[in-house]
Amino acid sequence: MSARILATYRIACAANEIEARARALAAEQSVEMPIEAIRDPRVLGEIVATVESVRPSGNAFEVILGLAAETTGGEAAQLVNMLFGNCSLQPEVELLDADFPPGFASAFPGPAHGIAGLRERVGATSRALTGTALKPQGSTVEHLAKLAGTFARAGIDVIKDDHGLADQAFSPFAERVPAVQRAIDAANGETGGRTIYAPTFSGGPGALATQAAIARDCGVGVALVAPMLVGLPVFVEMRRTSGLALLAHPAFAGASRVAPALLLGRLFRLFGADATIFPNHGGRFGYTRQACLAIAAAARDPWEGLEPVLPVPAGGMSVERVDEMISDYGTDTMLLIGGALLAAGDDLLGLSREFVRRVRNT
Amino acid sequence: MSARILATYRIACAANEIEARARALAAEQSVEMPIEAIRDPRVLGEIVATVESVRPSGNAFEVILGLAAETTGGEAAQLVNMLFGNCSLQPEVELLDADFPPGFASAFPGPAHGIAGLRERVGATSRALTGTALKPQGSTVEHLAKLAGTFARAGIDVIKDDHGLADQAFSPFAERVPAVQRAIDAANGETGGRTIYAPTFSGGPGALATQAAIARDCGVGVALVAPMLVGLPVFVEMRRTSGLALLAHPAFAGASRVAPALLLGRLFRLFGADATIFPNHGGRFGYTRQACLAIAAAARDPWEGLEPVLPVPAGGMSVERVDEMISDYGTDTMLLIGGALLAAGDDLLGLSREFVRRVRNT
Repeated sequence: MSARILATYRIACAANEIEARARALAAEQSVEMPIEAIRDPRVLGEIVATVESVRPSGNAFEVILGLAAETTGGEAAQLVNMLFGNCSLQPEVELLDADFPPGFASAFPGPAHGIAGLRERVGATSRALTGTALKPQGSTVEHLAKLAGTFARAGIDVIKDDHGLADQAFSPFAERVPAVQRAIDAANGETGGRTIYAPTFSGGPGALATQAAIARDCGVGVALVAPMLVGLPVFVEMRRTSGLALLAHPAFAGASRVAPALLLGRLFRLFGADATIFPNHGGRFGYTRQACLAIAAAARDPWEGLEPVLPVPAGGMSVERVDEMISDYGTDTMLLIGGALLAAGDDLLGLSREFVRRVRNT
Repeated sequence: MSARILATYRIACAANEIEARARALAAEQSVEMPIEAIRDPRVLGEIVATVESVRPSGNAFEVILGLAAETTGGEAAQLVNMLFGNCSLQPEVELLDADFPPGFASAFPGPAHGIAGLRERVGATSRALTGTALKPQGSTVEHLAKLAGTFARAGIDVIKDDHGLADQAFSPFAERVPAVQRAIDAANGETGGRTIYAPTFSGGPGALATQAAIARDCGVGVALVAPMLVGLPVFVEMRRTSGLALLAHPAFAGASRVAPALLLGRLFRLFGADATIFPNHGGRFGYTRQACLAIAAAARDPWEGLEPVLPVPAGGMSVERVDEMISDYGTDTMLLIGGALLAAGDDLLGLSREFVRRVRNT
């Protein structure tokens, strides 16, 4: 028997159909043809996915399939294809989890920097990190650079672009990124701080390479990237070739068909994220506290030789929730507060300092 | 007022919350911050998304937002980010449709070949096209090449790789693709036919470039690509640089959160697909007939200067359904039958010929 990935699916169907439905899913996610028409014993024994278990779960069923690890070719797009390619088109099927066989992760890069690398960049040995975002899109480069300077003077560790800032005419990457980095450098020079900048990387491989060159030229060391928008294998290639730390953004990652802990936690980690942003419970998104803690666990729990990834709860957070969030997630975490700081208006510097103070004191 | 994309969402919420929920979605999909904290009149007037209409629809609401076209930067990943980036994480929101302002499409490549280009390659002026797939993964290169020779001798127009064939050790791209193309060339030589091959392209940008070079070297002119797996902007870059016709596969395209006609029809067309495969109703997937016809319409209906895209209904089809499918979709269509041909076993050539005969006679 070849090494198997144990993939757990939730299937909604009638009890008298589940055995056949599970076998059909096993065919769908491996050979995608009638099993009885396969004559090659190696394909039957080592390639066709196996139904490992079926058990009722609420008003549906949890089915564990054994997917042959060799069908993934050790490559990100093909791994996701085998886990959830065709069955993503079947609304009654969700992907809940995946356990990989020993050694499987070694084909993938994993985080280059991880929590330790990000801590070193900002000079924070044990406390939680602070993060914020440059918004809104449509602003001039001058406005965004001024915001960045204010945030940096307040001592925020990581200033990221809003994920909606890409390469639009109102603030082109080639103008925005050097200007923002200069503003942060100037503030760091004033305060002795070590604030870092994570601009949004977006577009096709050619555009991403151009953006990486611009970033390196002006001393940017971190990229904000939405793996589901640029493509998972592109994210892996950025990890392998760019030298940048990667802050993964969940845009276009869907809500309910792939479990967030698997996608934003385990898979983004496998593919090379150093930090993973996710919508915290109690904000603008519907994730439960349990789902959020599961993301953080998938990001940080021991996993062969892979560096732990920094969890970044976000999405409508406020300074008032700092204590609660650190209590939930511990200090190996970055708290990301965007809009709630900007809502302070003329007191942006004051509220940003209060955010930093609270996190440092917790 | 800048040009607006009219994006239609389905929002499930209580009637007394929908106005606020619609405004919140408008903020989420544009500036992602509290509107009242924005002072720049240009951002308020031209960047913040507008709520164009709200109307009840069943037990939910259809909300049309006006998204500023300039926020997309004329780029695929950022377009999808603005349409459905963050709100993909909100389970109560679905994306139903998008209408683009005049001229918007010109920033995107659209199909290079379209239906006319594919017809020319296979020498079919007006009839429907036939397609099939090489399966199962795990087979040897010799087996796949032999299958391809049989299908080509039967006169099938397009032989694609199973979407699960990538670059695995059991049939590496660099060995499989030349061998399959040789088998098809040999069969075409015998029959005078013009069968073409569409191997699966998969992996990161570097791997895709290598695969394109291998394909060109052995005379392959079509690539099977899953845009959601390789990444939408990568698909655009393949369209712009590879010279290959692109047969889009729906793997990982999700089931219920973005309307299939928008994603598999309109967006894949905008980004450069020449043909789009989708799961036909009555097969292994749950799409309705209406949803399938909407995909075909989005693929083919007049749209500024964009070439029409060949709709490819698939996913558990059989030779018995040829007449019905052509009646549904017309002849500007490719019928794709995979597993049902392979199930013929020793009569693979006979059933494949019957498939070709039926399509030519309809």
